[in-house]
Amino acid sequence: MEPASPTAAAPLLPPPDASTEPTPERRHSVADRADTRLAREAHVGQRPGTLTIREGSLTPRLFLISYDENSCQEHEYDNYQELLTYFHGHPELRHWIDVRGYNDLELMQQIMADFELHPLQMEDVLGDYQRAKVDVFGDNRLFLVSRMTEFTQLLEIDDDQLSIFTGPNYVLTFQDDYVDCLDTVRQRIRSGFSQIKRKPPLYLAYALTDVVLDQYYPTMAAIGDYIEKLEDRILQDRPDRRVLGRILRMKKDIIRFRRFVYPEREKVAEILRMPDEIVPEEMKVYFRDCYDHAIQALDLAESYRESVTSLVELFMSNQSNRMNEVMKVLTIISSIFIPLSFVVGLYGMNFQRENPDGSINHLNMPELYEPWGYPVLLVVLAAIVIFQLVYFYRKGWLTNR
Amino acid sequence: MEPASPTAAAPLLPPPDASTEPTPERRHSVADRADTRLAREAHVGQRPGTLTIREGSLTPRLFLISYDENSCQEHEYDNYQELLTYFHGHPELRHWIDVRGYNDLELMQQIMADFELHPLQMEDVLGDYQRAKVDVFGDNRLFLVSRMTEFTQLLEIDDDQLSIFTGPNYVLTFQDDYVDCLDTVRQRIRSGFSQIKRKPPLYLAYALTDVVLDQYYPTMAAIGDYIEKLEDRILQDRPDRRVLGRILRMKKDIIRFRRFVYPEREKVAEILRMPDEIVPEEMKVYFRDCYDHAIQALDLAESYRESVTSLVELFMSNQSNRMNEVMKVLTIISSIFIPLSFVVGLYGMNFQRENPDGSINHLNMPELYEPWGYPVLLVVLAAIVIFQLVYFYRKGWLTNR
Amino acid sequence: MEPASPTAAAPLLPPPDASTEPTPERRHSVADRADTRLAREAHVGQRPGTLTIREGSLTPRLFLISYDENSCQEHEYDNYQELLTYFHGHPELRHWIDVRGYNDLELMQQIMADFELHPLQMEDVLGDYQRAKVDVFGDNRLFLVSRMTEFTQLLEIDDDQLSIFTGPNYVLTFQDDYVDCLDTVRQRIRSGFSQIKRKPPLYLAYALTDVVLDQYYPTMAAIGDYIEKLEDRILQDRPDRRVLGRILRMKKDIIRFRRFVYPEREKVAEILRMPDEIVPEEMKVYFRDCYDHAIQALDLAESYRESVTSLVELFMSNQSNRMNEVMKVLTIISSIFIPLSFVVGLYGMNFQRENPDGSINHLNMPELYEPWGYPVLLVVLAAIVIFQLVYFYRKGWLTNR
Amino acid sequence: MEPASPTAAAPLLPPPDASTEPTPERRHSVADRADTRLAREAHVGQRPGTLTIREGSLTPRLFLISYDENSCQEHEYDNYQELLTYFHGHPELRHWIDVRGYNDLELMQQIMADFELHPLQMEDVLGDYQRAKVDVFGDNRLFLVSRMTEFTQLLEIDDDQLSIFTGPNYVLTFQDDYVDCLDTVRQRIRSGFSQIKRKPPLYLAYALTDVVLDQYYPTMAAIGDYIEKLEDRILQDRPDRRVLGRILRMKKDIIRFRRFVYPEREKVAEILRMPDEIVPEEMKVYFRDCYDHAIQALDLAESYRESVTSLVELFMSNQSNRMNEVMKVLTIISSIFIPLSFVVGLYGMNFQRENPDGSINHLNMPELYEPWGYPVLLVVLAAIVIFQLVYFYRKGWLTNR
Amino acid sequence: MEPASPTAAAPLLPPPDASTEPTPERRHSVADRADTRLAREAHVGQRPGTLTIREGSLTPRLFLISYDENSCQEHEYDNYQELLTYFHGHPELRHWIDVRGYNDLELMQQIMADFELHPLQMEDVLGDYQRAKVDVFGDNRLFLVSRMTEFTQLLEIDDDQLSIFTGPNYVLTFQDDYVDCLDTVRQRIRSGFSQIKRKPPLYLAYALTDVVLDQYYPTMAAIGDYIEKLEDRILQDRPDRRVLGRILRMKKDIIRFRRFVYPEREKVAEILRMPDEIVPEEMKVYFRDCYDHAIQALDLAESYRESVTSLVELFMSNQSNRMNEVMKVLTIISSIFIPLSFVVGLYGMNFQRENPDGSINHLNMPELYEPWGYPVLLVVLAAIVIFQLVYFYRKGWLTNR
Repeated sequence: MEPASPTAAAPLLPPPDASTEPTPERRHSVADRADTRLAREAHVGQRPGTLTIREGSLTPRLFLISYDENSCQEHEYDNYQELLTYFHGHPELRHWIDVRGYNDLELMQQIMADFELHPLQMEDVLGDYQRAKVDVFGDNRLFLVSRMTEFTQLLEIDDDQLSIFTGPNYVLTFQDDYVDCLDTVRQRIRSGFSQIKRKPPLYLAYALTDVVLDQYYPTMAAIGDYIEKLEDRILQDRPDRRVLGRILRMKKDIIRFRRFVYPEREKVAEILRMPDEIVPEEMKVYFRDCYDHAIQALDLAESYRESVTSLVELFMSNQSNRMNEVMKVLTIISSIFIPLSFVVGLYGMNFQRENPDGSINHLNMPELYEPWGYPVLLVVLAAIVIFQLVYFYRKGWLTNR
Repeated sequence: MEPASPTAAAPLLPPPDASTEPTPERRHSVADRADTRLAREAHVGQRPGTLTIREGSLTPRLFLISYDENSCQEHEYDNYQELLTYFHGHPELRHWIDVRGYNDLELMQQIMADFELHPLQMEDVLGDYQRAKVDVFGDNRLFLVSRMTEFTQLLEIDDDQLSIFTGPNYVLTFQDDYVDCLDTVRQRIRSGFSQIKRKPPLYLAYALTDVVLDQYYPTMAAIGDYIEKLEDRILQDRPDRRVLGRILRMKKDIIRFRRFVYPEREKVAEILRMPDEIVPEEMKVYFRDCYDHAIQALDLAESYRESVTSLVELFMSNQSNRMNEVMKVLTIISSIFIPLSFVVGLYGMNFQRENPDGSINHLNMPELYEPWGYPVLLVVLAAIVIFQLVYFYRKGWLTNR
Repeated sequence: MEPASPTAAAPLLPPPDASTEPTPERRHSVADRADTRLAREAHVGQRPGTLTIREGSLTPRLFLISYDENSCQEHEYDNYQELLTYFHGHPELRHWIDVRGYNDLELMQQIMADFELHPLQMEDVLGDYQRAKVDVFGDNRLFLVSRMTEFTQLLEIDDDQLSIFTGPNYVLTFQDDYVDCLDTVRQRIRSGFSQIKRKPPLYLAYALTDVVLDQYYPTMAAIGDYIEKLEDRILQDRPDRRVLGRILRMKKDIIRFRRFVYPEREKVAEILRMPDEIVPEEMKVYFRDCYDHAIQALDLAESYRESVTSLVELFMSNQSNRMNEVMKVLTIISSIFIPLSFVVGLYGMNFQRENPDGSINHLNMPELYEPWGYPVLLVVLAAIVIFQLVYFYRKGWLTNR
Repeated sequence: MEPASPTAAAPLLPPPDASTEPTPERRHSVADRADTRLAREAHVGQRPGTLTIREGSLTPRLFLISYDENSCQEHEYDNYQELLTYFHGHPELRHWIDVRGYNDLELMQQIMADFELHPLQMEDVLGDYQRAKVDVFGDNRLFLVSRMTEFTQLLEIDDDQLSIFTGPNYVLTFQDDYVDCLDTVRQRIRSGFSQIKRKPPLYLAYALTDVVLDQYYPTMAAIGDYIEKLEDRILQDRPDRRVLGRILRMKKDIIRFRRFVYPEREKVAEILRMPDEIVPEEMKVYFRDCYDHAIQALDLAESYRESVTSLVELFMSNQSNRMNEVMKVLTIISSIFIPLSFVVGLYGMNFQRENPDGSINHLNMPELYEPWGYPVLLVVLAAIVIFQLVYFYRKGWLTNR
Repeated sequence: MEPASPTAAAPLLPPPDASTEPTPERRHSVADRADTRLAREAHVGQRPGTLTIREGSLTPRLFLISYDENSCQEHEYDNYQELLTYFHGHPELRHWIDVRGYNDLELMQQIMADFELHPLQMEDVLGDYQRAKVDVFGDNRLFLVSRMTEFTQLLEIDDDQLSIFTGPNYVLTFQDDYVDCLDTVRQRIRSGFSQIKRKPPLYLAYALTDVVLDQYYPTMAAIGDYIEKLEDRILQDRPDRRVLGRILRMKKDIIRFRRFVYPEREKVAEILRMPDEIVPEEMKVYFRDCYDHAIQALDLAESYRESVTSLVELFMSNQSNRMNEVMKVLTIISSIFIPLSFVVGLYGMNFQRENPDGSINHLNMPELYEPWGYPVLLVVLAAIVIFQLVYFYRKGWLTNR
């Protein structure tokens, strides 16, 4: 019955390719984050709904996972028509059409037409910088946008967009990345028994939304670790100026992260407010869970932001502290030796003991002619030093703070 | 009639075991607070409602307090079936089933099934990091989550989760701690006469919620004391850098604390908005009191947060002040002795009084040949010192600030 | 007809007793302000509605003012039953029962029972730390809580609670202080012609609420004066570190004050939203006026808060400024004398003019042998000093900033 | 028919009297701004609606402008009864009764009675510190309060209150100032053709409200100029501490100003929400314009506030910068001369070349006996200086930053 | 039929004239930005709806683009009557009447009358400082105000106002600039196939609104680039004080920018809430897209604002850092040479070895008479230097931070 039966078990995805990992050389393009990208790539005055492919988009790869309660088949198609044929040939199954990579304008337009998407929606998909949102269209179809995040090895938060369209018996997703965080969902479909396989496509959309939200936690755990590492550096090492740069960049990233999560919460809240014809009550239990997760992610982001602000304060205090330390060294050394120098300078003066008439002037520096003069002086100098050391010790300047 | 009549008066709970108190060695795990825990332990992509036991959970202990208006019996059961038997055998009594420790997945699933809890609810229970919330389920059952806090000897706020499910004639609670702050409630049930024993189970749920809220006050009193101690250290001692670290950590803790209290207020507000079939009007009087408490706890947390911010300012000012002090010592000593050194250096010069022809050059340093030269010079030096001391005294630099 | 006719004109209240004024020795207990008190005295897990008397409460004194449009009688009763007898014996009059001091649990419980107050309400009264609020109970009775404030001689904001219950022909007030700010209201009742005497008891409740709100203004005026005094000290004197401590404490106090006023506004707003059966429209005109006052008090508190924040900035800048001053003195003295010292050190060198062969080495320090050497050098030194003074003068370092 | 026909063209208002301009001597009373005034003059516990005249109020002057579409007559009356007679004698005209100065309690009470004002309203008028607000009273009469502002020559924002009551064929205004910003409105009425003359009295109330709002812009322009002047002083001159004082005072003033404007917006918004019976739709077009103006004034105030905050940062940075400068001078001079002093001190040592036995010790300071010793040393010293100057130049310390 | 058929393809707009670009000389007038302009040019007390031409307005140029689904003609008219004739002569076409420059009061009044605009609307147009807003007037006509922004070569955000009126078959726009960002829209109309040509005039209004919103992105990209440049200067160069001035100005600009965008969002939100008779559902899809853009622009502005705040922190830290550096140089040099100076001063003392009786005093500075005295001393001095250098190296003061 199944003409082009795809081998369900075959590893469809290549292992995470090293070349897709950001390397230091590619750093600049990673630093080109959504913010700036968004600002730079806006096509001013373009006809709304005009589809343009962002530079650097990947060649599309088409995946289809078809399942019912008892079976599950997945396949990567080289050819869109083949996929479509199989899709239309099996209306009794549920399908997850997973498009990765946007770099084929014609294909995108065809998908848009075949699945009755609005050009403005497709523009949101390809623009790759849409805030999380949900739109209802058609009778009760949903268009969901999520932002997937990742804390990269470059110590920055990277983000990608996942666009989800629901249909009567399918879910259509778009993303511009071959490697994603949705594998756990795929695994659950593949596994013998799964809620996903027994519930309507909306449940799959929920599962995808949920996995993206769950993904925020490891991102934040990584941020938390990094913040702790920065804090340790400030407290233990002698942090240089670049540490502040990193802290401020981290702050910017956390704020950006919060900007991803906030609309995520609004999105789920909107879903919860939708009438039962669109999102049935039994699905809302699940989205309510999503809502809790989004709020907690926001809480965490807020918490980390406060931590980073504290780091800045700590850094500033540390800087001021080091200045204190420098000053103390200067003060101690100067305070000890400058008076001593005066005393020895005093006895380097050339006041004459002999008057012009050859008589001895007992008033002019008699000390110099005392047999015990020099030893007594040395004792006096030592006494001054000791006195000062005691004074500074009492002030706590000699102990290391 | 009562087959396994538990001895009601027997001390059911061991005294707070020293080994359950956080010790410095266990500090790291305590520092692993909910925030980070939450971020770290999220199970990305897991099927919603999947039950997993957090590492480090305690072995479950099962307590049952059964009471009606006139009697009260409590017992710790080693065996869940025994508990269930007793519970089902006494529908005329009201029961508080108190589960402490989660580390038995099978047991948890069985309780879930027996008491008709939703897997997502059970996931919230076991996850141990749910914000305070209330859900209605079944006909008019409530699922309440509270966060219990404690200011530990490690000067940190520790928090635990208390999950409460109400039923027709019972209350079911979960927590992952053997020692808790609910003993006052147990005492009130044991005592001869108590509102709890005459009111429906919802009143017990209220009493538990209220005791958690009340617990916030001693937590905050401890915080307040600690803040005062820190303030004293800044004002009296010479605080080192670590004090700032502690202040900032305290700030983080207070913010976290506020994050616990805030949803607590929302939770109670939601209960107050519920229809009378679920929460009867006569119960709302009590929850309204809870609401006042939650708001006041929020106020207090806000107040302490401001205090901590002021502490940071005080610390910074203090740091700057110490720098001032160091600078003043340096300036006073340098300003006094550097000019003196110049003067004595002046009379250490070797200008020759005798011209090459042997005649006396009266212009070259005649002072050196004056009989009163040296004493006069000493007087001049002393005058300079006195002048400067007066000057600095007037500026207020000699008095201790 | 009136058995124990109280002499209306007799001075009922003793003059403000010196022993009730906070003295420096009592300071610590005053510093034990509501915040901390609230946190410390919460009775965790207590049965809601349990009445406990705060430590340090005063022995109750019972006052009754009975009036109708034409007459007014006031009396202090030693015995509650006497008061009650008189009260019940004159249903045609309106009564203000004024309880000052809580330290008699039995009496409190009896009043509670006689006037049909809810135990939770009574708990709010005796707890003495309830936010301002309004509750409707009975048919159309009101329970109003206000916080009275005072700027004490210890330069802190002291606060007390005024609890007001309205009834069909009476107003019942509680406070834990013998001296209060309500005397103006009593005076208005005593005076021949007063709105209070012609209007329902709610009007008296309004008048009491209003007088508390009005009391906020002198409190704030005192704060304003104190802020100005602090500002003057920063600008004119040489403020020490304690000034910052005072500023920060004042900030805390103002924030606390705002926390009193804010719920006051909410309270009045809630009264304005009540149906006409409870608060008739003609009374709302008066409460609307209260509302304006509450908003203006909030505005003022906000304004003072900003002022205090500015004070902190001013203090910090001043501290930095003093450091500048210290540094300038150091720099001027060092910059002038260090070069001079070098020059005189130069001519203190012992380079030999006589070669070993006795001939004169004209290269080695010939200046020392010049007849005009010393005077010329002094001129040069003076020139250096003058040059530097001019330089520093130009930089503006010599003028006092 | 018109007994005391006022000459419409006569200059009714004296030219702005110099004596009403704030002079430095009067400064203190101007500094006594609304905030403090408000706090100080509140009459605690006074019967609501009690009329009291603020100290320093002006003697009332009564102006009447009577107009219909074609005519306009204005007159200053010495006698209130005359005014009233004329007013009642001309019901076919529209009237603007303009009371300037409050200092006649009896008169105020009479006006209150004649025009059916509520005592609480009159209290708001005379208190002179009411926030902008609108009340509806009578059938559809309005009571509008506006705050007029002015940036005085003392560089402060002065404010006065304008109270407006509308009536069927008149507008009644109160203010405690002889000179105001309403002359443009008067001019428009006098001019042959004006909307005001053809529209109901509400339009005149609108025109007055609008002119007060418009007045905010020059106030803010003056603030903007002053801010720029302060910025210039910080950037160019060497600002002293008083500049910070002025900046902070300006900040306080701007915040206060915003506090005036904010309720102004609320007031207009409330008018826009009123039913058409009170404010007809055709009038709302005009108030909508007012609303835009109020929002823009708020925007501006917000903008200036940010500017002032930036000024504080700039000042602080400047202060820190001057410290840097002082330190650099000290460091350059010390670093150059301290090593030099060491070198010359070195050759001032008295190590003996002659051994006790008269032989020459060639190890002890042979340099002193070299024929080229002194010149070579001078060259070395010069080299040290040059080296250091180059070093400091490279660090950029010699150039003026 | 078409008398003065305009040549559609002719370049209607001159190339951006160099004289319209802001040059440094014109800077002051550019710096005279909307804020201050708004404050300065308000005409206090003017009759509402009074039309006045701002100084510096351009001479009006009149453009007409007339199109239907298949054709498009554009023309610049020297004469308003000609334009009107053509416009009225072609009711079957849709028209975009584009007025650039306001400096002809009579013309403006005539347009106002011909197109039935309200004087208050026209005042908003000519005032050129209206916040973005939307008004409905007539039956279902819209008046839309947008603010166009541009980041100028003077590193400031310049803004202009675009006022749009819709009509049954036309759109009327006003702006006071010859060069604008709407050319892309014109191009789309000119092109053969365009949505604009097939949809009602409201779609053109939408397209213009959208292009203004899109224009915000390049503005912000330019800001982002400039911020990065400033950050680089702080981190790499030795930034001078003016950098802070620029940062603070940029901050002000970004805040101002946000003030433009915020009402833009409100405007679109208001359009989305309008009933379908005014804005049909099919148009709302497009405005919903606008709404997303406005929110994202706000997000970006918020993000940049945070960046600028971080820049200030970075600058301050950098300043403090440079002070540290200066202090370290001073401390190192002083700490090394001051002790050395003391030592050499010691041996410059003149204690006499010979007693008066000619005998040798072996206690007085015997070192000076040691044959190895000088070399040993040099070694000691070197040892002191080395010791200190090691100490400073260990403290990390010698390495460049």
